[in-house]
Amino acid sequence: MMGKRCVSVILFEGFQLLDVFGPVELLSAVPDLFEVRFIGPGRGPVASSQGISVSVTDSRDGAAEPDIVLVPGGRGTRSLVQQRSFLAWLTGFARSAPLITSVCTGSAVLAAAGLLDGYRATSNKRAFDWVMTNGEHVHWVPQARWVEDRNRWTSSGVAAGMDMTAALIRHLHGAEVAQAVTDYIEFEVHADPAWDPFAYGIDPA
Amino acid sequence: MMGKRCVSVILFEGFQLLDVFGPVELLSAVPDLFEVRFIGPGRGPVASSQGISVSVTDSRDGAAEPDIVLVPGGRGTRSLVQQRSFLAWLTGFARSAPLITSVCTGSAVLAAAGLLDGYRATSNKRAFDWVMTNGEHVHWVPQARWVEDRNRWTSSGVAAGMDMTAALIRHLHGAEVAQAVTDYIEFEVHADPAWDPFAYGIDPA
Repeated sequence: MMGKRCVSVILFEGFQLLDVFGPVELLSAVPDLFEVRFIGPGRGPVASSQGISVSVTDSRDGAAEPDIVLVPGGRGTRSLVQQRSFLAWLTGFARSAPLITSVCTGSAVLAAAGLLDGYRATSNKRAFDWVMTNGEHVHWVPQARWVEDRNRWTSSGVAAGMDMTAALIRHLHGAEVAQAVTDYIEFEVHADPAWDPFAYGIDPA
Repeated sequence: MMGKRCVSVILFEGFQLLDVFGPVELLSAVPDLFEVRFIGPGRGPVASSQGISVSVTDSRDGAAEPDIVLVPGGRGTRSLVQQRSFLAWLTGFARSAPLITSVCTGSAVLAAAGLLDGYRATSNKRAFDWVMTNGEHVHWVPQARWVEDRNRWTSSGVAAGMDMTAALIRHLHGAEVAQAVTDYIEFEVHADPAWDPFAYGIDPA
């Protein structure tokens, strides 16, 4: 078995709370397997879209090479997709990571950075039209709880990030470990990536 | 309809992330209905059991009278139930609140403060034996996603707090509002408080 994997969560002003802390709750239930790091613009705390500030472990400049990158969604993605210096940093930071993931509108950020070009991906269903404008060369999947395409895993809106993370733990460490984690937090997981009752109203064309 | 309700989340060192940010994600989806405040020991940030520090809005001494109190669980509850000055403060702060709630082992804290005496309540299923030692006069319910008894609502472990919160929004503002909130975060709620596959192994006697 591999050693502990470093999961780098990219924080920015206006991130969505549960996009981050849903997956982190699952990953930190097995601290021998994952080390979660929070990468902020600088060393200072970063405010979620709900106004709660959380501490970071590393600044973008000082962050070590990650095994897994996780980009959350949230209101802040709207400006993030237009920040060229950030996108250039993200591309460099994430490109050689074994696994690149996003929750919710985090996939718009990955798309804007070019990191989803040629990949299948999904996103929040309420923001799908906007998300798609950020990646012309992405094969957007309008009905999916999450999408796995090689080493790009993207989840649907907010709570879907927890199902994707549980699947990721299963993928990396087996069903028994994943089950122990989800039981521990009394979470009933959706294990089928095609399950998506929230896709209603999206034109699948 | 009532005005905006103030939900005061009691933070302490070693709180469980999702116990707080699951419910908060739901409540802050309807900011016209709920104002979420984070009450810390002082004005400084408070670290979760996973080591992430979050900002507070009020210190215990300075917190305004709440409409709803929410006590999360987490490793920190183990020492909290023995801190007499904290328990005395909590009793005074919460007693006249229209609604007192907890997630996970937060009910051990409410019990230790005497706030569940004569009430039915539940808690995390992995810590149930320990939780029960904190409230001899509580009618502990070993199989429940959450328990509503008059104005005391207590949920089972971690993720169960989200189902309880969705039920609370439904109770206060109707099914349509609750559905809009859970759809917004693409969350499939368990609407039956008796649903509890995680109670396995607990002696119901």
